[in-house]
Amino acid sequence: MQTRRRFLNTTALGAGTIAAGSVWSAGDTAILEKKTWNQELGVGVDANPYGVPSQFESNVQRRNVEWLTASPVSSVNFTPVHDLDGIITPNGLCFERHHSGVAQINPSQHRLMINGLVNRPLVFTLDDLYRFPRENHIYFLECAANSGMEWRGAQLNGCQYTHGMIHNVQYTGIPLRLLLGEAGLKRNAKWIMPEGADASAMTRSIPLNKALEDCIVAFKMNGEALRPEQGYPLRIIVPGWEGNMWVKWLRRIEVGDKPWHHREETSKYTDLLKGGRARRFTWEMDAKSVITNPSPQAPLRHGKGFTVISGIAWSGRGTIPRVDVSIDGGNNWKKARISGPSFEKSMHRFYFELDWNGDPLLLQSRAHDSTGYVQPTKEELRNIRGENSIYHNNAIQTWYLDETGAAENVEVS
Amino acid sequence: MQTRRRFLNTTALGAGTIAAGSVWSAGDTAILEKKTWNQELGVGVDANPYGVPSQFESNVQRRNVEWLTASPVSSVNFTPVHDLDGIITPNGLCFERHHSGVAQINPSQHRLMINGLVNRPLVFTLDDLYRFPRENHIYFLECAANSGMEWRGAQLNGCQYTHGMIHNVQYTGIPLRLLLGEAGLKRNAKWIMPEGADASAMTRSIPLNKALEDCIVAFKMNGEALRPEQGYPLRIIVPGWEGNMWVKWLRRIEVGDKPWHHREETSKYTDLLKGGRARRFTWEMDAKSVITNPSPQAPLRHGKGFTVISGIAWSGRGTIPRVDVSIDGGNNWKKARISGPSFEKSMHRFYFELDWNGDPLLLQSRAHDSTGYVQPTKEELRNIRGENSIYHNNAIQTWYLDETGAAENVEVS
Repeated sequence: MQTRRRFLNTTALGAGTIAAGSVWSAGDTAILEKKTWNQELGVGVDANPYGVPSQFESNVQRRNVEWLTASPVSSVNFTPVHDLDGIITPNGLCFERHHSGVAQINPSQHRLMINGLVNRPLVFTLDDLYRFPRENHIYFLECAANSGMEWRGAQLNGCQYTHGMIHNVQYTGIPLRLLLGEAGLKRNAKWIMPEGADASAMTRSIPLNKALEDCIVAFKMNGEALRPEQGYPLRIIVPGWEGNMWVKWLRRIEVGDKPWHHREETSKYTDLLKGGRARRFTWEMDAKSVITNPSPQAPLRHGKGFTVISGIAWSGRGTIPRVDVSIDGGNNWKKARISGPSFEKSMHRFYFELDWNGDPLLLQSRAHDSTGYVQPTKEELRNIRGENSIYHNNAIQTWYLDETGAAENVEVS
Repeated sequence: MQTRRRFLNTTALGAGTIAAGSVWSAGDTAILEKKTWNQELGVGVDANPYGVPSQFESNVQRRNVEWLTASPVSSVNFTPVHDLDGIITPNGLCFERHHSGVAQINPSQHRLMINGLVNRPLVFTLDDLYRFPRENHIYFLECAANSGMEWRGAQLNGCQYTHGMIHNVQYTGIPLRLLLGEAGLKRNAKWIMPEGADASAMTRSIPLNKALEDCIVAFKMNGEALRPEQGYPLRIIVPGWEGNMWVKWLRRIEVGDKPWHHREETSKYTDLLKGGRARRFTWEMDAKSVITNPSPQAPLRHGKGFTVISGIAWSGRGTIPRVDVSIDGGNNWKKARISGPSFEKSMHRFYFELDWNGDPLLLQSRAHDSTGYVQPTKEELRNIRGENSIYHNNAIQTWYLDETGAAENVEVS
């Protein structure tokens, strides 16, 4: 369609719009053509007891990067964040990261044990757990290695790969403090260690304060049972903290008086700084944002004129009251519009409406969280941490948009 | 597990719980057994580019009732509300209602036209639409016929069938007022008529005020593209109003000066009252709630003791600040706990924790909405409207829970 449009005050969504010029695309008679689907009966309600996306959306899928890891059972695939909008990630597109593949658990045979520094060790069936009071919360889950390949320079040319180790769903589950209260904590209890039932028997140390504050033993995500790759039938939710701690296929919670220092919190998921010292226990995911559209996998196809720049922002420390967007590589910033609900430790969606003149742009976004923290540049992070570690890269991302609307992963200095 | 538990002040979720008695199930050694999934590698990340539920959840599906309708292409299937929790309905389980089956639309060939009493008739491609400012909102969609079979007495023995013509998702789309503003409304514009691209060419009349207030032209649900059965690639969202007006496969919006009185708003979706007069344009869905667990398809399996009664509530006129639960058929009411976000015209989730003594119960729930309206009994509704019409039954639902924990659809007088 060849209309020329001018949005008046579009960010306020109040003043309406003005159109001028022709309103029909030259030669576009598609609206006049009869289509099969206008004339013939479609598919009946008995066809898909569990629905699936349109065949025309088959390119919207999780993808892995084969050279990143040695084997698909100890690997990661990525959420196609450039194909999504709003703040809910559909369950079928939530990224996966496993250390021994997806356990296929029969829930009738699954148990959850609470042991260690408790007065009464407990073992629960799932039916036992359903008898406890539940809560519902929308939280993001981000892998500590999200954007990790970008520490040493712009590398993976797609938002799905640079920022796709994140998803955001509504969880239903039991506050962990109720289960720990049921077991009765001993006086010297200070830490908990969730353990997975998969072959890697994933374990992490979590301070008891966090466990009592807002951790959840979840059995549903986005209304339905957890997906197998997300820990079916049970997962521990550790809001705002790195994804590796959200142990899947949860079968045991041990209570102790000190951290366990297991493999996945020492040789992995610990940040080796430039001087050779290591930051351990960098649990909280700092404020971060990224422009998802346009991005390398999602070029701006329509040429110059009015367009919507879209992205996501989140913080493990609270909400995101503000996101800024720059079109000149960080020299100038303008406030983006956040649309949709704003929850603690949840993804936020921002939009920035722009009348693009067709010149190349250096697109960036910058999140501010409710503690006052502002997302840093990659340079600022490197000055402090160096480039040894791949974890916890929450730096500002830059996309170079060329005259054709194609986008590329670049760095600016 | 044979523990006897007493929840102290569980509805406040503050005071913790007390356990007494044995903590291991007699003879349950499942936690000690080695399972295949503890020892062998699971499924790799390349197995499911678009994920699916666990094989052990295959009974969680939409279901139709064959005798209700003549053909699967002009029929309905129902959301398994008794299997879900929280407030988000996963896309694959959102109920479907079609009049000529699911149109399988190729989005590159799809157009949206705005015509009638406008200054500039417009035709949009999808790429055109993506250039307009977007919003994100979580709304329920309820069919006007939801619970319709129950007007003349308790009939369908399952919450999925009595109340499953509802779903609740986050939509991403363009405020309709922006598109109408782009076309320019003529002075005498008073109504709009959305039209579907399916073979039934569904049409409904909507007052312009509503269109300008909060209607949306949506292209995403729960983050991803609309599902085919929900109108892919475009649907009009009419928040709080009966589902039939949310025209799917949206191809045209006509602007007029009076309603069109088409088939689906006269011979159907109009309430014939007992005196022979008809209520037309009963668009807003009044406050309603239902206990989803226990219910006929979801018995209370664990026997007497502490249990969670769970349900959903919604109103087309605002939020749900309060839900009451009765265990004695409406003689006494207690306040339930609402958990999770409360949005305008969205589903709400409530819980009611109960120490069940094993006696039969008559379970009911009653929603209060933010306008002060209280969900009525079926008797109260029948006194006003009679039993001619099957639409807009928002009455209190009763489940009879017997000593075994089985539930049945009943009426109390």
